Amino acid sequence: MTNQRKPRGPYRKSAERREQILQAAYEAIDEHGERASLQDIADRVGVTQPALTYYFPTRDDLLLAVLERRDVVGKAFAVAAEEERPMIDSMVASTRHTTDHPGLAKLYVTLSAAATDPESPAHRYFAERYSGLAAEVTEYIQEQQRTGEVRADEPAEHLARTLLAVLDGLQIQWMHDPTVDIAAVAETFTRMLVPPAGSGQQTGSGQAAEPAG
Amino acid sequence: MTNQRKPRGPYRKSAERREQILQAAYEAIDEHGERASLQDIADRVGVTQPALTYYFPTRDDLLLAVLERRDVVGKAFAVAAEEERPMIDSMVASTRHTTDHPGLAKLYVTLSAAATDPESPAHRYFAERYSGLAAEVTEYIQEQQRTGEVRADEPAEHLARTLLAVLDGLQIQWMHDPTVDIAAVAETFTRMLVPPAGSGQQTGSGQAAEPAG
Repeated sequence: MTNQRKPRGPYRKSAERREQILQAAYEAIDEHGERASLQDIADRVGVTQPALTYYFPTRDDLLLAVLERRDVVGKAFAVAAEEERPMIDSMVASTRHTTDHPGLAKLYVTLSAAATDPESPAHRYFAERYSGLAAEVTEYIQEQQRTGEVRADEPAEHLARTLLAVLDGLQIQWMHDPTVDIAAVAETFTRMLVPPAGSGQQTGSGQAAEPAG
Repeated sequence: MTNQRKPRGPYRKSAERREQILQAAYEAIDEHGERASLQDIADRVGVTQPALTYYFPTRDDLLLAVLERRDVVGKAFAVAAEEERPMIDSMVASTRHTTDHPGLAKLYVTLSAAATDPESPAHRYFAERYSGLAAEVTEYIQEQQRTGEVRADEPAEHLARTLLAVLDGLQIQWMHDPTVDIAAVAETFTRMLVPPAGSGQQTGSGQAAEPAG
């Protein structure tokens, strides 16, 4: 277990500094979008710009770390929102996280588009992000199919990829027209995931209560 | 009617030349993606590069015209594919049009991302494209809801926006990982649009035949 204890001394200090820089970049982009300058980020932490590059050698390294954090924060936000209607609540929370943080959403869309070029530094990051997310959501959907919350008449992976596509696509629509109520559209989509009536699949807790045991 | 006759003389020649350039740009980008140079496009038509700018003042003007054509060609392709299962056939054809023309798909994703910036020259083009498409697909879905092909338990506009989001989102997933079978995922999605059994909505031609009259 000794390997897992928190780093101490200069090593700890270095991890803390990296975290400060990442947090500052996250906030700067949240406020100003991609236009946020490295100088602004360095100023927020009180370091020089060359010090930044010690932790994040290129601007892309820093931007991808910010996107990684966005994923983590967004997921935590979605999970925290799950109450009586887990699928709906978390989908709606995801869209809300998008619309509440337009600077971060814009960064995501821009880098994701650039990353489709195999020579882009972000290419591998996004390829892994998508395959990881697809696997994770597929597993979640399989679980929901077993409990009867989600229709089992379609392959879980297809439903998972559709769900991810809806989130990405609605994000784009919203950025082109912020008057679109993408939370409401996402709600419609989650209802399309429910087992069709008469499919003999409705055994889930979201449906009529089954006698215990 | 005289106003609608085809232009003649120098005016006609100018329209033809514009069309040649647009077609050459479409093909060059289809082959080489965004890396296609203006010089290459000019060479294909046999004009000088300055002559290009007479018809398309900026590179963006030309690229947006190519995207507009991609929409037209893609839609024609989707409509032509409609046979017994109109929704499924056209959705699958749309994804196929994407995967058959990666250079054009990449251009679309990149410009669409850049256009989320209100100061981008493509901003208005995309805003209008999305609102126009949303209106068009909504109308189509309303029709399908009336004939019972599409579920009427959700607002047509939500279903339309979901459909557009799925197409955009799957396109992105495919560009990050070309092994994903997005045509199959799109098929799953179209089945989610079907009226749930027992909704009392199944009166469409896709279902049991109704007595004529």
